[in-house]
Amino acid sequence: MTETALRVIVWNENVHERQNEEVRAVYPNGIHEAIAAGLREHLGEQAVVRTATLDQPEHGLTDDVLESTDVLTWWGHLAHDQVSDVVVDRVHRRVLNGMGLVVLHSGHESKIFRRLMGTTCALLWREADDREVVWTVNPAHPIAAGVPHPFIIPRQEMYGEFFDIPQPDELVFISSFTGGEVFRSGCCYTRGWGRVFYFSPGHETFPVYYQPEVRRIIANGVRWAYRTNAQRSQTYRPTPLSIGWYEGKAGEQV
Amino acid sequence: MTETALRVIVWNENVHERQNEEVRAVYPNGIHEAIAAGLREHLGEQAVVRTATLDQPEHGLTDDVLESTDVLTWWGHLAHDQVSDVVVDRVHRRVLNGMGLVVLHSGHESKIFRRLMGTTCALLWREADDREVVWTVNPAHPIAAGVPHPFIIPRQEMYGEFFDIPQPDELVFISSFTGGEVFRSGCCYTRGWGRVFYFSPGHETFPVYYQPEVRRIIANGVRWAYRTNAQRSQTYRPTPLSIGWYEGKAGEQV
Amino acid sequence: MTETALRVIVWNENVHERQNEEVRAVYPNGIHEAIAAGLREHLGEQAVVRTATLDQPEHGLTDDVLESTDVLTWWGHLAHDQVSDVVVDRVHRRVLNGMGLVVLHSGHESKIFRRLMGTTCALLWREADDREVVWTVNPAHPIAAGVPHPFIIPRQEMYGEFFDIPQPDELVFISSFTGGEVFRSGCCYTRGWGRVFYFSPGHETFPVYYQPEVRRIIANGVRWAYRTNAQRSQTYRPTPLSIGWYEGKAGEQV
Amino acid sequence: MTETALRVIVWNENVHERQNEEVRAVYPNGIHEAIAAGLREHLGEQAVVRTATLDQPEHGLTDDVLESTDVLTWWGHLAHDQVSDVVVDRVHRRVLNGMGLVVLHSGHESKIFRRLMGTTCALLWREADDREVVWTVNPAHPIAAGVPHPFIIPRQEMYGEFFDIPQPDELVFISSFTGGEVFRSGCCYTRGWGRVFYFSPGHETFPVYYQPEVRRIIANGVRWAYRTNAQRSQTYRPTPLSIGWYEGKAGEQV
Repeated sequence: MTETALRVIVWNENVHERQNEEVRAVYPNGIHEAIAAGLREHLGEQAVVRTATLDQPEHGLTDDVLESTDVLTWWGHLAHDQVSDVVVDRVHRRVLNGMGLVVLHSGHESKIFRRLMGTTCALLWREADDREVVWTVNPAHPIAAGVPHPFIIPRQEMYGEFFDIPQPDELVFISSFTGGEVFRSGCCYTRGWGRVFYFSPGHETFPVYYQPEVRRIIANGVRWAYRTNAQRSQTYRPTPLSIGWYEGKAGEQV
Repeated sequence: MTETALRVIVWNENVHERQNEEVRAVYPNGIHEAIAAGLREHLGEQAVVRTATLDQPEHGLTDDVLESTDVLTWWGHLAHDQVSDVVVDRVHRRVLNGMGLVVLHSGHESKIFRRLMGTTCALLWREADDREVVWTVNPAHPIAAGVPHPFIIPRQEMYGEFFDIPQPDELVFISSFTGGEVFRSGCCYTRGWGRVFYFSPGHETFPVYYQPEVRRIIANGVRWAYRTNAQRSQTYRPTPLSIGWYEGKAGEQV
Repeated sequence: MTETALRVIVWNENVHERQNEEVRAVYPNGIHEAIAAGLREHLGEQAVVRTATLDQPEHGLTDDVLESTDVLTWWGHLAHDQVSDVVVDRVHRRVLNGMGLVVLHSGHESKIFRRLMGTTCALLWREADDREVVWTVNPAHPIAAGVPHPFIIPRQEMYGEFFDIPQPDELVFISSFTGGEVFRSGCCYTRGWGRVFYFSPGHETFPVYYQPEVRRIIANGVRWAYRTNAQRSQTYRPTPLSIGWYEGKAGEQV
Repeated sequence: MTETALRVIVWNENVHERQNEEVRAVYPNGIHEAIAAGLREHLGEQAVVRTATLDQPEHGLTDDVLESTDVLTWWGHLAHDQVSDVVVDRVHRRVLNGMGLVVLHSGHESKIFRRLMGTTCALLWREADDREVVWTVNPAHPIAAGVPHPFIIPRQEMYGEFFDIPQPDELVFISSFTGGEVFRSGCCYTRGWGRVFYFSPGHETFPVYYQPEVRRIIANGVRWAYRTNAQRSQTYRPTPLSIGWYEGKAGEQV
């Protein structure tokens, strides 16, 4: 790894995997390990990829850990309510200060995503085995680099519109499902000094996180969400300003 | 009609209808008359709806006609190249000065739409009889008012992504097709003082323009694209300005 | 008033006015009454304008009141923390279900605005007497209708960038200040079924809410944020869906 | 230089410099050489920076040159009309297929920028010696990396709103001027497979292109606009598609 490696934490509630034999059969080491493996495959020496889970102290997301994290990916479903508000506040602040966030699949209803979006993030759904076809609607976007148009996810839970999110700053992917539903499946947001990417494919009972196109997109998303230290805000100016406050301060950055 | 009625021109190249028995069977008075009937049904006394076609002098779009038009709807397909550049220039200027424009279906490749978008406006397509399902992704938008979510168009030509348009200022509808393709089927743009709505449903061999949901959407689109006279720009300030040029001119509007 | 009149509540914390002689001199009946007068002046018979304040039971924003409110305007500054979270939750839900919200000036740091934006909504500021010049950057927008370009607010608190908000769905106004600062002073958002307009001019010690251009903009904002009942969501589909759930249900709206 | 170096062409009409002693005093080798020097300073080994000018055959922008160009920067003012439509068509097509374009200052009225925007790109202006203050409104954007907030350009031509452009996909900078005018001075667009950045600072009689902050922004803009070969489109699918055309073609990219 290089000195300037991108430091990623793959977070997972890791509940399905411990309760459900069927999920364990697909993700024997947990969904987080499958996602982390995909990132290591694509980012190689550019990144240091670690994992964290709900059952760790402070969910593995202490101040120290977040201070040394460039991009966080988030997978949760059954246990959104068990994520402590203190940790959500901390992650929220870090994102606004420049840490990237990649929210995956059922993470759409996580506290942190709803906090950042300001909406319910509700959607229509069907847990069956729809085929999902993913289409690129912004081929110039870095997250679409190297992604076939379209690509097929053979079996997937259906997520359908209306998806109650703010209009994305950049919409990258739209999916269709066997039942005829559509979904804005790849959505980019800027919030404060941070960037947020939501990507919907990925279900606990289907091997979606082993699929090459999905792994590539998540890796592209991590790279896109990454801001260098130069682009992070540590504090925010709390005091009133006088006329001309910014003169003669060439090079200073608020 | 009222004194302040919204003045609409429904423009149609009117070529298919004269060449093709099958089209004539569906639209015996031309596609323009079906669209105009839908607008009259929805806008009633609020609007005066007229039509114009390619074969008229200056395609029915003289300076005089455009000067007294608030919103223009556009349907073309086979004869895009026969639309004179002089008329396209004129319509372009009028749109930038505040005339609304509603571009329908194969109008995506019209000169005027490509001029306003700056891109090729190309798309994927299949002339078969796909079922189209239209989903609302911006339920607060005035164009979505009263539109069922979703609604079905039983038989339709497939238009698929990637649709080479600028990211819409507001995306209102996304469609899916039998073949699994998706399409941004309702797209809003602001250009200059004018507003542009693109709506893809509507094919010459299918009775799409008789369908209630489609008629409602086109009427909503006309209303949305309409700017009052107070919001139109007649000229643009051609001269350099001095410091303080805008002081003491309360009430003046550039 | 007509049967379908737009029902507006002008909310004000009403604290400065009671504590500060200087503010009372400018707004003897409270800032809310000045805003309400401007709305009555512009909306006339189209609207029923009422007021509510912090010190009323449930801040005057009971379930019953909100159920019969189409658009809420919000002014707060010193007492953001005294607004109860229960009321904020209620207003938030109502906005997502289609009630319009117009947030004014120091309301940028209110709980409800930060909740809807998902960011800190912090900004740079100077309480002096800068001249603010307000420029229209989207002249086709309904909120800009009839607004001179530019217009001057002779004395105003400075609000400057970086303003920590999501990129507006539509940016309508940008202001400059004597000190050279700039500010995105008119910002439109869609959240769920609701619309939110933020407008920054308006300070407690300056007579900004008596200025004709400001009154016009706030009235335009209220009209823009208003959604008809047909465009409101009462409930959200809580159950999983089967394939084909939407077939044969023409006219139903989710 | 490396094998994968980013290939930049800095284009300049180079007319002022030959006609006007005052301009020559500021830019003795032409504006293009000052811009190119700034890019070499910032991009170093990552890029190969060449120049081209109006008076060269095909304005130095032959098919061969464009085929081997990743990003083009554009400066023009007096001679927009002398740029041949054939060359504009060619550049337009290349941008839509993935070549980056950085349009500078008076290039706002160039044929290529107006073609891509679809609007007049007119603005208010004053050729005096206003001070311009440039503010970042999207600090997470790569083009803002390392840019002080704000920074001052001591002497500059005033460009003011309303600037008749489509709402930017991402707005990065807003400027104010001595006269109180404001301007959207850093605007990002995606068009087809290509990216376009407009940056307004830079006048022929002021040494703006020697200023460190301006050089950094233009270099950031070039990097942002650069798409890898993997993200370029060579052709567009011209034929109708059958149902299921995309099945069994894993890895193919339209």
